[in-house]
Amino acid sequence: MLKGPFLDKDFIGSNKNYDKADIVMLGMPYDCTCTNRAGTRFAPQQIRVESIGIETYSPYFDKDISDIEFFDAGDLEFPFGNAEKMLKITEENVDCIYKDNKKLLGIGGEHLVTLGSIRALKKYYKNIAVVQFDAHTDLRDEYLGEKYTHSGVMKQIANLIGFENIAQIGIRSGEKQEFSLMQKYNTHKFSPAELDIFSDKKIFITIDLDVLDPSLMSGVGTPEAGGMSYIELINWLKYLKKFDITGIDIVELAPDIDTTKTSTATACKLIRECLSIL
Amino acid sequence: MLKGPFLDKDFIGSNKNYDKADIVMLGMPYDCTCTNRAGTRFAPQQIRVESIGIETYSPYFDKDISDIEFFDAGDLEFPFGNAEKMLKITEENVDCIYKDNKKLLGIGGEHLVTLGSIRALKKYYKNIAVVQFDAHTDLRDEYLGEKYTHSGVMKQIANLIGFENIAQIGIRSGEKQEFSLMQKYNTHKFSPAELDIFSDKKIFITIDLDVLDPSLMSGVGTPEAGGMSYIELINWLKYLKKFDITGIDIVELAPDIDTTKTSTATACKLIRECLSIL
Amino acid sequence: MLKGPFLDKDFIGSNKNYDKADIVMLGMPYDCTCTNRAGTRFAPQQIRVESIGIETYSPYFDKDISDIEFFDAGDLEFPFGNAEKMLKITEENVDCIYKDNKKLLGIGGEHLVTLGSIRALKKYYKNIAVVQFDAHTDLRDEYLGEKYTHSGVMKQIANLIGFENIAQIGIRSGEKQEFSLMQKYNTHKFSPAELDIFSDKKIFITIDLDVLDPSLMSGVGTPEAGGMSYIELINWLKYLKKFDITGIDIVELAPDIDTTKTSTATACKLIRECLSIL
Amino acid sequence: MLKGPFLDKDFIGSNKNYDKADIVMLGMPYDCTCTNRAGTRFAPQQIRVESIGIETYSPYFDKDISDIEFFDAGDLEFPFGNAEKMLKITEENVDCIYKDNKKLLGIGGEHLVTLGSIRALKKYYKNIAVVQFDAHTDLRDEYLGEKYTHSGVMKQIANLIGFENIAQIGIRSGEKQEFSLMQKYNTHKFSPAELDIFSDKKIFITIDLDVLDPSLMSGVGTPEAGGMSYIELINWLKYLKKFDITGIDIVELAPDIDTTKTSTATACKLIRECLSIL
Amino acid sequence: MLKGPFLDKDFIGSNKNYDKADIVMLGMPYDCTCTNRAGTRFAPQQIRVESIGIETYSPYFDKDISDIEFFDAGDLEFPFGNAEKMLKITEENVDCIYKDNKKLLGIGGEHLVTLGSIRALKKYYKNIAVVQFDAHTDLRDEYLGEKYTHSGVMKQIANLIGFENIAQIGIRSGEKQEFSLMQKYNTHKFSPAELDIFSDKKIFITIDLDVLDPSLMSGVGTPEAGGMSYIELINWLKYLKKFDITGIDIVELAPDIDTTKTSTATACKLIRECLSIL
Amino acid sequence: MLKGPFLDKDFIGSNKNYDKADIVMLGMPYDCTCTNRAGTRFAPQQIRVESIGIETYSPYFDKDISDIEFFDAGDLEFPFGNAEKMLKITEENVDCIYKDNKKLLGIGGEHLVTLGSIRALKKYYKNIAVVQFDAHTDLRDEYLGEKYTHSGVMKQIANLIGFENIAQIGIRSGEKQEFSLMQKYNTHKFSPAELDIFSDKKIFITIDLDVLDPSLMSGVGTPEAGGMSYIELINWLKYLKKFDITGIDIVELAPDIDTTKTSTATACKLIRECLSIL
Repeated sequence: MLKGPFLDKDFIGSNKNYDKADIVMLGMPYDCTCTNRAGTRFAPQQIRVESIGIETYSPYFDKDISDIEFFDAGDLEFPFGNAEKMLKITEENVDCIYKDNKKLLGIGGEHLVTLGSIRALKKYYKNIAVVQFDAHTDLRDEYLGEKYTHSGVMKQIANLIGFENIAQIGIRSGEKQEFSLMQKYNTHKFSPAELDIFSDKKIFITIDLDVLDPSLMSGVGTPEAGGMSYIELINWLKYLKKFDITGIDIVELAPDIDTTKTSTATACKLIRECLSIL
Repeated sequence: MLKGPFLDKDFIGSNKNYDKADIVMLGMPYDCTCTNRAGTRFAPQQIRVESIGIETYSPYFDKDISDIEFFDAGDLEFPFGNAEKMLKITEENVDCIYKDNKKLLGIGGEHLVTLGSIRALKKYYKNIAVVQFDAHTDLRDEYLGEKYTHSGVMKQIANLIGFENIAQIGIRSGEKQEFSLMQKYNTHKFSPAELDIFSDKKIFITIDLDVLDPSLMSGVGTPEAGGMSYIELINWLKYLKKFDITGIDIVELAPDIDTTKTSTATACKLIRECLSIL
Repeated sequence: MLKGPFLDKDFIGSNKNYDKADIVMLGMPYDCTCTNRAGTRFAPQQIRVESIGIETYSPYFDKDISDIEFFDAGDLEFPFGNAEKMLKITEENVDCIYKDNKKLLGIGGEHLVTLGSIRALKKYYKNIAVVQFDAHTDLRDEYLGEKYTHSGVMKQIANLIGFENIAQIGIRSGEKQEFSLMQKYNTHKFSPAELDIFSDKKIFITIDLDVLDPSLMSGVGTPEAGGMSYIELINWLKYLKKFDITGIDIVELAPDIDTTKTSTATACKLIRECLSIL
Repeated sequence: MLKGPFLDKDFIGSNKNYDKADIVMLGMPYDCTCTNRAGTRFAPQQIRVESIGIETYSPYFDKDISDIEFFDAGDLEFPFGNAEKMLKITEENVDCIYKDNKKLLGIGGEHLVTLGSIRALKKYYKNIAVVQFDAHTDLRDEYLGEKYTHSGVMKQIANLIGFENIAQIGIRSGEKQEFSLMQKYNTHKFSPAELDIFSDKKIFITIDLDVLDPSLMSGVGTPEAGGMSYIELINWLKYLKKFDITGIDIVELAPDIDTTKTSTATACKLIRECLSIL
Repeated sequence: MLKGPFLDKDFIGSNKNYDKADIVMLGMPYDCTCTNRAGTRFAPQQIRVESIGIETYSPYFDKDISDIEFFDAGDLEFPFGNAEKMLKITEENVDCIYKDNKKLLGIGGEHLVTLGSIRALKKYYKNIAVVQFDAHTDLRDEYLGEKYTHSGVMKQIANLIGFENIAQIGIRSGEKQEFSLMQKYNTHKFSPAELDIFSDKKIFITIDLDVLDPSLMSGVGTPEAGGMSYIELINWLKYLKKFDITGIDIVELAPDIDTTKTSTATACKLIRECLSIL
Repeated sequence: MLKGPFLDKDFIGSNKNYDKADIVMLGMPYDCTCTNRAGTRFAPQQIRVESIGIETYSPYFDKDISDIEFFDAGDLEFPFGNAEKMLKITEENVDCIYKDNKKLLGIGGEHLVTLGSIRALKKYYKNIAVVQFDAHTDLRDEYLGEKYTHSGVMKQIANLIGFENIAQIGIRSGEKQEFSLMQKYNTHKFSPAELDIFSDKKIFITIDLDVLDPSLMSGVGTPEAGGMSYIELINWLKYLKKFDITGIDIVELAPDIDTTKTSTATACKLIRECLSIL
């Protein structure tokens, strides 16, 4: 055999043993329903490659992810242009993770992948709440006639777990009717303490990276000015740390759009912070 | 004929009837006096194309531009490298708009186009004030021997309507003499309430997009660090809503510079907000 | 009304009267089955915008497209991620064009759109042959379980009109089985004279722009080195001019990938040449 | 003083003594009449910077430019948007060069600058011929009402020296009337031997870089497919070497458009070859 | 000689006389130890070129750099991949500057160049303190076996002048051990007043541009979200103005990464502000 | 465990068993001596990622790499800025490959890595010839005082195996002395038949990707116009197929420079062709 030393092909700081892992990182490279620029399909690969460039230590959480037992499972292979099949494959694999009593760290792909994860999660836990960080409401019933799109994923999830178990943070774009829905069900949250209603729930956090201001996170399909700073997002995560979190996913990075690679590097660091609170 | 359905070729939410319109959107694709990188000439086209990707509903103003009667007139055709002719064509067309008792939503092009609009406006209203959002003073008497340049447009406008009718917001770049002029005439404003002196005036708002921080708005010829955030600009517009606004223009976007398209998408949203207060 | 002059919003040289037109230019902005980088959905818009920069006169064909009666119908609106509906909409509109006894100049979108056009064409003409310029065979039966993809569009077309009515030019990528199919049916052509077998047919030419070398045409999802030069493609078109051509489409431009805009400008010129031989 | 060593701020291989120089390199950073994308104004600076990366030895001409006496005079400072003043400044400076019995190596800037050089040249030599390498005829009488534009520079030069003293090589774009002019005066040349009619003339070579295929030279305002390869252009220069060349200019590079810097690097090498034949 | 006028080849506002200068601007284009993306070697050249586009007047410090006596010495020439030789050349040249009783304004290149400057500075002043603005601790003992790298430059400087003479501002990335070192020696500072301990020292300020948020300064090898705004950095510099500053360097700009040129333009302005406080 | 299906993390078509492999693919991500733009360090990772997008079947060699037994060993981890250590690590690992009686398919990194491979190869075979495809001679004795640089790698290899065992193809850049060396030793080859002198040798082919014309392969540090087309390179490889090839490396891709990804995709395909002749 070769002597090496070799660079790691997996996310920096991961270990190689699925059985010992508490957390499973799973790539979900699907992007066929995007309504604007595509390319989220390439995110998990580029995140893995770029992760070599970040530090494993998070000064925000004073934690080194080398000390966390997480396994990088690689990327699922999906058919193109078939949302149903994608959802089924995602659900089946996330099902394994929860059956094995582990937690999920999902990496999209477009936001629709979250629906597959929640479908699996729902089989194992009754008392679920989903905390969504996003620029968009994602509450459409359908988009140009299609039901399963990244513009309606939270509506589908609400159908599964109820609007009362959803919190929406950072929202600043949507149709008038979508904003009315948020108001009706009071899902739009503006301060961390509003999340205390979920203190006895199993929390799933879904982070659409466009919740961050496009000045920092330009590598997304639909940049929306007026978003969060990185520190603001970290502060939300610091508050959420005390909750019972069973899974997190980070979606909608389109790495090729931001040729400075700031977006991809920021996603890598955010994954580091998320591993720190899981 | 063809059955369609077809995508709109005009700005999203516009209607097709000039006569019924309260507002006329007019593209002014001129960029021949720029002192740094050019390309503002391509802004109106790209704004129109990119507008398909934004929502017509503004959560900041709780208004849907589909409910506003505005007509997208398309882009004027200008000669190259002849500022005088461009000003004449602009003036003639804006003249029509005010004669027809409508309001202007101009889309540059470089900042010099604003001079053409003010020349027309001045024929119809006596009591005009111009509120400028900009990183630069634009108060030069001349630039390398030329009088009509985007670096001196506000000086030309001041010559027309008087320095006392000008407010300058977000300024952070210029020659020492230009800053002295701002001080002498007290045109540099730092808080919305300072604009109350214009409460009985016909207001024209001119927004040079480089007033925004280049972290968000990098698609401009001369990026100037230390600029406004999108929310700060929205807050100024919220205050201005109560004034009697007769026209707004949005200038100096150079769409090709920012390949992430964040700049163009942000310009589209800002136009949506501007339509909401016109 | 406004005085203008205004820039044209349509493809340069087009006229405004559908009824008088001999040729209808129709945008088909669909890209949901792409197996690599996406973005062909933005091609028709950008081609229209960029067309302003080209000359209407083609020195290759000594013809000015201002002298040709063609109508720019704009872009169809498609649902996302639903190939069947897209094919239906395309077929219905192209049907109108042939019913009105006109010719089609289609602008993709991904290559799958061609199937919709051929379905319509087949209703009006019995004796059809399709001449494909492409880097890829596009002869897959399915791709990751999906039947209607841009990787299998020529297989679907062969099912409709028979392999004997297909010519494939410029092919240099595919699976071993696909190359075997080309050999079996002798569809792979290397010199213009081989096309003479179609001299009594109604010809439809479909040009996947990746037939050109990616040195020139980098704005495609799957760049394949070893392709044609522009002059080589022009020479094929010069030979085809004598045939009875009923339609042409130009597909798979992904304009945002090539930030130099060479790809989009070249597509515009190629459309000019195609108009010249229709 | 500082010890160094220091990198050269001038074009690689240049010497510091104007008086001893046989050739003067002069930057002419003007770009205000461009009809498409601008940015040629930045070419001389970027060429100077990038020149550090090339070899001083040309294997094509077996010559090292370190052995040639040329002086890099730097870049002229022009007013914006004033073609007449630019032409005057250019003429005055090129006048000095010819008065001092040196040769010119001009670096644009847009093609219009050549007119200034020819005006100066004409005072010192009676028997001038201009050999133009270009994708475009540049024979317009006017463009949108303007006389002095880069689209009409050769027409202006023809007015000065007569069509019979003009050769146009690589042309593949223009209006029908412009191609008619070329035909009428037989200025369009296809093989080097056709240039022998100029064997007793003082030759000025003007190279619009878009004569090269945009696959190689994408950093131009108006990329035109179907252009020359680098080797083809070198072969023309090899033939021209035997002529009595009094000046060369290289124009229309827009360095920022080609972020790979292939265009700028190629311009640097072409300048090296041009120095070799001057 | 030529008449001109000519553009300046040096940093805008500089004068041509070394002897009269109070400040020497010196380019240090070295980048061979970078652990992520390279290209800082091109920073001094591009800063010089881009400086033409900025105003010489700083509204933040109400000072015009045309009124400051500074000399732009150009860029040192370094061997590739030999840190020791680079440090020696840097030290020798900075030595000259301090021997001639001037101040240094260094422009990197990677952060390692600062070590050369401090080595020279230490010969002339006993009582030195270094104020570091940076996203990274730069306190590694070694990196992959190498001692002299940009990841360990502050450790090397601490070895020279003692940890008690170091202040670290803006730090948000490093290994756990590096953060422990900062805590142990209390070098991590969060408010300007903490710098008062250095009121009797000779201050050297070293600014790694990645201290700024990558939303503004994306042109760096390792973008770290959560950084300073431009105004925050200006405020630190305003406080530092009263100290006895003997030198400043600005390092780690990789200009080609940020094709919008916002990073380079911002570096130019920051240099203007730094000249204002030297 | 998870059900999958999963995408491959390795080069497409590779198998997972080192012992059964005939060929070992080994990434050598070193780039510290580059004299122009860097970034070759990222090539092996991006090639692996992009390889998913290519077909495993080569129509040029009528071979499917799924039928070839090759193992993707991953990327060596090198120290930064230490050429000697890099060469040692490379040599040790390539040594293993030849000891295990396999062939090498190396992926750079910069061209200097080839020296490590040849050092290892030389221990196992006496009768070695190196066939270099390159734009540059790479025959410098030293570069700015450094001996081990990518500009001198072929000189170092000549010192090991003798100039008579070197063939240089595609060369078009270098110093005058380097061209003299090529002439003296007759290493510069222009047609495949000239390689027959090596018919009884163990051949190592080293392909610096800048041998290809930068129109196609712009993702290199030093683009040199006038290079080979892809088909020309394929034709050389077709001729070389009959030789006894023991190793090939493909170096100097800098993937981030070419944002169209044409360069990386072309490198992937070239690797496919190289696997076909090994």
